[in-house]
Amino acid sequence: MNTAPSQWFEASIAELSHLQNLRVWSIIVSLFGDLAQQPDARISGTTLTRIITPMGIKPEAIRVALHRLRKDGWIESTRSGRASVHFLTEFGRSQSAAVTPRIYARDPQPPAAWHLLIAEDGSGQTALEEALLLPQYISVNRSTALGQGAVPEGVEELFAANVSQLQPPRWLQARLFPDDLIETCQALLTALQQLSFPAEISAVEIATLRTLIVHHWRRIALRHPDLPSHFHPEHWVGPACRARVFDLLDQLPQPTLQELDQSASS
Amino acid sequence: MNTAPSQWFEASIAELSHLQNLRVWSIIVSLFGDLAQQPDARISGTTLTRIITPMGIKPEAIRVALHRLRKDGWIESTRSGRASVHFLTEFGRSQSAAVTPRIYARDPQPPAAWHLLIAEDGSGQTALEEALLLPQYISVNRSTALGQGAVPEGVEELFAANVSQLQPPRWLQARLFPDDLIETCQALLTALQQLSFPAEISAVEIATLRTLIVHHWRRIALRHPDLPSHFHPEHWVGPACRARVFDLLDQLPQPTLQELDQSASS
Repeated sequence: MNTAPSQWFEASIAELSHLQNLRVWSIIVSLFGDLAQQPDARISGTTLTRIITPMGIKPEAIRVALHRLRKDGWIESTRSGRASVHFLTEFGRSQSAAVTPRIYARDPQPPAAWHLLIAEDGSGQTALEEALLLPQYISVNRSTALGQGAVPEGVEELFAANVSQLQPPRWLQARLFPDDLIETCQALLTALQQLSFPAEISAVEIATLRTLIVHHWRRIALRHPDLPSHFHPEHWVGPACRARVFDLLDQLPQPTLQELDQSASS
Repeated sequence: MNTAPSQWFEASIAELSHLQNLRVWSIIVSLFGDLAQQPDARISGTTLTRIITPMGIKPEAIRVALHRLRKDGWIESTRSGRASVHFLTEFGRSQSAAVTPRIYARDPQPPAAWHLLIAEDGSGQTALEEALLLPQYISVNRSTALGQGAVPEGVEELFAANVSQLQPPRWLQARLFPDDLIETCQALLTALQQLSFPAEISAVEIATLRTLIVHHWRRIALRHPDLPSHFHPEHWVGPACRARVFDLLDQLPQPTLQELDQSASS
């Protein structure tokens, strides 16, 4: 068995766990995205449990969450001897890959070019809703979408125009960066500022901490688009939070799956 | 008394009168705008009647319309001996002057620069409605206005952006140039193409024809904004109609008020 967890580790986990209710299936999605996104990446049940249980999550809850993720087509599980191993399905991997660039962008450059798509009152909103399914669009109001880059082909039903010198009013800042997002981001930054790590950390400890940091950051990074800073409301600390996330992840270099399995069974 | 009206004159009037129901007060507004917009311009009741009655409008209807225009503060009337004289009030003159550039633009150049103002859903529309009171704004939909030039100061409540490469869809073309406007413009062009004038025309005849042409054109010119040609729907003949209007007005040079009074009393 492993030695008892050290004080700094328990304190770090406590900082990161009190932020919000952790949904186990979502933690597992963060974990696979961070540590096992490659097509051949497999994590043993033992390793998964050793990474997640320090967060205060019971093995039974992990089993339930894995069951749900299998049912939703995200994860598959097989047996290797007496041990179970888990891996992302093709679907799970593509979902994960789709958001990885936004989560892991250290210094995202907001696009220089933007366009607007404007729908006719009433029925025109259907055409707009189709555009808003694409990740490069931001909903401005019921009939307007702000899109990255120049006006694309195929938007004949919408009034389209390239735009410059965007002047977002307060209501738009508040729509894009709602108060609860601002507060969540402030709380994460505060928690991350408390963290400091010793020189020697086990691969599993690294995995637990990385998963928690990435998990919390993912829930912030994916909730706001990359926009020029004059779109940010007054108390938005997103850029500082992002900088701290990557500062910490640099101190917790990603372990290989082999290192993890060895560390987990030590 | 005057000689009987000539055949070409009656035919011309017929072409221009069947286009739509003439509202007498509106005819008088067109007439003052065209012939008596200067601060010292006064038209005698006799001249006014001689210009308007050939359109098939009775003197009694002119008196009723003048009464209404006086009540609305557009026109004042005084007596000069036994004759009545009419003139635009300060208000009437400023209203007339405000639209004169749009009516009399021979070759309007649509602005090169445009901006959009976008309101928040719901309450934000009040801020937009204020902007739409200004002549440089066009309503695109319930929450969007297209404005000439660059984004102005003082629109902090609206999402504002300079725009380029505007791509108006059919619904926007149809909103800006509704079918009845297209048809009215086509009918006016057809009528104007029938007109031709002899070399000798009296000042009053000129005034009657100018008033009718300007009147019909005014009702088209003021109903659509000057927009680049790709905003025009397929059957829009506005530019051809405008060209024909000024071609005809050039053949009917504006008489002075003195010439008119002399011609009317001859």
